[in-house]
Amino acid sequence: MDMSSKDPVAPPLEVSKWFNTEAPVSLAELRGRVVAIEAFQMLCPGCVSHGLPQAQRVVDTFGSDVTVLGLHTVFEHHDAMTPVSLEAFLHEYRIGFPIGVDAHDRPGGTPITMSRYQLRGTPSLVLIDRAGRVRLNGFGHIDDLTVGATLARLIDEAPPKPPATACDPDQGCPLPTDTIPTKETHR
Amino acid sequence: MDMSSKDPVAPPLEVSKWFNTEAPVSLAELRGRVVAIEAFQMLCPGCVSHGLPQAQRVVDTFGSDVTVLGLHTVFEHHDAMTPVSLEAFLHEYRIGFPIGVDAHDRPGGTPITMSRYQLRGTPSLVLIDRAGRVRLNGFGHIDDLTVGATLARLIDEAPPKPPATACDPDQGCPLPTDTIPTKETHR
Amino acid sequence: MDMSSKDPVAPPLEVSKWFNTEAPVSLAELRGRVVAIEAFQMLCPGCVSHGLPQAQRVVDTFGSDVTVLGLHTVFEHHDAMTPVSLEAFLHEYRIGFPIGVDAHDRPGGTPITMSRYQLRGTPSLVLIDRAGRVRLNGFGHIDDLTVGATLARLIDEAPPKPPATACDPDQGCPLPTDTIPTKETHR
Amino acid sequence: MDMSSKDPVAPPLEVSKWFNTEAPVSLAELRGRVVAIEAFQMLCPGCVSHGLPQAQRVVDTFGSDVTVLGLHTVFEHHDAMTPVSLEAFLHEYRIGFPIGVDAHDRPGGTPITMSRYQLRGTPSLVLIDRAGRVRLNGFGHIDDLTVGATLARLIDEAPPKPPATACDPDQGCPLPTDTIPTKETHR
Repeated sequence: MDMSSKDPVAPPLEVSKWFNTEAPVSLAELRGRVVAIEAFQMLCPGCVSHGLPQAQRVVDTFGSDVTVLGLHTVFEHHDAMTPVSLEAFLHEYRIGFPIGVDAHDRPGGTPITMSRYQLRGTPSLVLIDRAGRVRLNGFGHIDDLTVGATLARLIDEAPPKPPATACDPDQGCPLPTDTIPTKETHR
Repeated sequence: MDMSSKDPVAPPLEVSKWFNTEAPVSLAELRGRVVAIEAFQMLCPGCVSHGLPQAQRVVDTFGSDVTVLGLHTVFEHHDAMTPVSLEAFLHEYRIGFPIGVDAHDRPGGTPITMSRYQLRGTPSLVLIDRAGRVRLNGFGHIDDLTVGATLARLIDEAPPKPPATACDPDQGCPLPTDTIPTKETHR
Repeated sequence: MDMSSKDPVAPPLEVSKWFNTEAPVSLAELRGRVVAIEAFQMLCPGCVSHGLPQAQRVVDTFGSDVTVLGLHTVFEHHDAMTPVSLEAFLHEYRIGFPIGVDAHDRPGGTPITMSRYQLRGTPSLVLIDRAGRVRLNGFGHIDDLTVGATLARLIDEAPPKPPATACDPDQGCPLPTDTIPTKETHR
Repeated sequence: MDMSSKDPVAPPLEVSKWFNTEAPVSLAELRGRVVAIEAFQMLCPGCVSHGLPQAQRVVDTFGSDVTVLGLHTVFEHHDAMTPVSLEAFLHEYRIGFPIGVDAHDRPGGTPITMSRYQLRGTPSLVLIDRAGRVRLNGFGHIDDLTVGATLARLIDEAPPKPPATACDPDQGCPLPTDTIPTKETHR
């Protein structure tokens, strides 16, 4: 398994509120790290019995090799699964890894990040490689052997090289591509 | 095991809102029936993994021989476990027996019915006999063999006799209330 | 539920070897007691995962109110489930209640007691009342609520009355048989 | 994780009887493949409830990427866990991968392969890489995330290069390095 241009780039998280972290978490800042996102709803039975315990096992087993995030992707019972309720849920179930509340662009309906990742429901597990590409996007029950195998492969991959700043003796040194302003001028 | 005056009379339920029932449930009206009350909080992990599934198994096994009620005894995270959240919880976990929200006489703190029954926490299971006395009041995990045995004994007990008709030396002996004809003459 | 003449009398056990008991166990000597027989084969997965653990839970929950017996009813793989193998099995699985090896009247085939009770396979649970009648004869997974309820009812039944002593007008009244002293004089 | 000379070479299996395979299995012939050996005793409860089901999950999840073998390492109750009993056990528990009976060099005691691998008991899981080195040798419960991660790494390692037989037109063809006698002479 290796990074391939056909693996989609992980879209940014759109989070309205974070728990269990002092600062908001950004996937861009996690570039270079392996990231596991557990998308869940606090009143989804399969998330409570399977998805969230598995995410906790990933924390316990892989430690700092994997950054585990929870994403509260409320697409039903919006009034029931508010941030206030979620906070109590995280306390009672002793969930300590960072949890983001997926933002909505309109009341009700599917939250923004959930749409961007085209998740099919909850629980869903998304694994992102060091280069920021989605390498697994699974819905429902995914067994631990498969999750463990996939994470090991992502952990063992080399981090992406920083973009080369190819200096042309005649033209000079361009800024890296992703910071080039719209109207670039070589200098 | 038999009904004894040392078994406490089950105090009345103080419920602010009912789910899964058209009319409020009253223990007085259930006199003559065996009643199981599962006291829970929707965000209590032991209630979700053990207490409520056991209550459902009692419904499935004993059918109409036992009246199973849930009592949402919120004594913490009050803003998180509102009736709105509870309703979604009941829907997602497919709980179909009547559920009452234990009322509070002041914001926060222990709800009224929970105090009356001196419950030690959630989940708690209360079994009430046909005479309206509490025969089991257990906190935490109570195994199915014990619950099944206790319920069988309560089911097999004869319903309490109607109260003896009090004969007044001056007035004579009235018929028992529930057999008084429409046009009663005795007083 | 009460003892009825339509409940079959429990046939005697035909056991070739006993474990976990100094003396052979006889149902006749257990008359007056509630008896649970767990029929199993040591290489039957459902017996190992469900039947035998349930029998142990009955021991733990009901103590001296129920006599729990195991019956090793080998009807297949006869050379694999010998008494020598069974003894090691009982040791490794820490089974401490009496276990009888169901006898065969011919090599292979269904053992004698299993045939007498018309068991459908393993695991099977047989519950016998104080009067020596079979009150439950179930094959496969029987839930703990049902087993607990049934046992409570059998425990609560009165032991059968001793047979009335037939007084002969000419001879007088003999003592009941089982209290007759060695040198009896009445007749 | 990479192959290292400090990982011990997997000693050969000493098997007295094979099940579920037409021909005896030799680790030498499996060189180049990832091998998982589940060491168990058929009457060991932890093997039945955890070790063997995990081995089956490895078969189901990794398919032809991992060769799963069972090794019946009887070190107690020798008369109870004979090949005849084992065969029935494998049938009843529907275990289909190859199973070898670890051989004894004397009656009773620890079997030969178990000693060679210095296993601490049953269940034990041994993972061997493509170069024939032991990369994991664990006793008891090893979680699926860890097993999945380790197997993925072993699967992804390149197979060892075949020994170069670099024939020099002028010098001739040397023996492969590991078979060169102490005093080698080119021919």
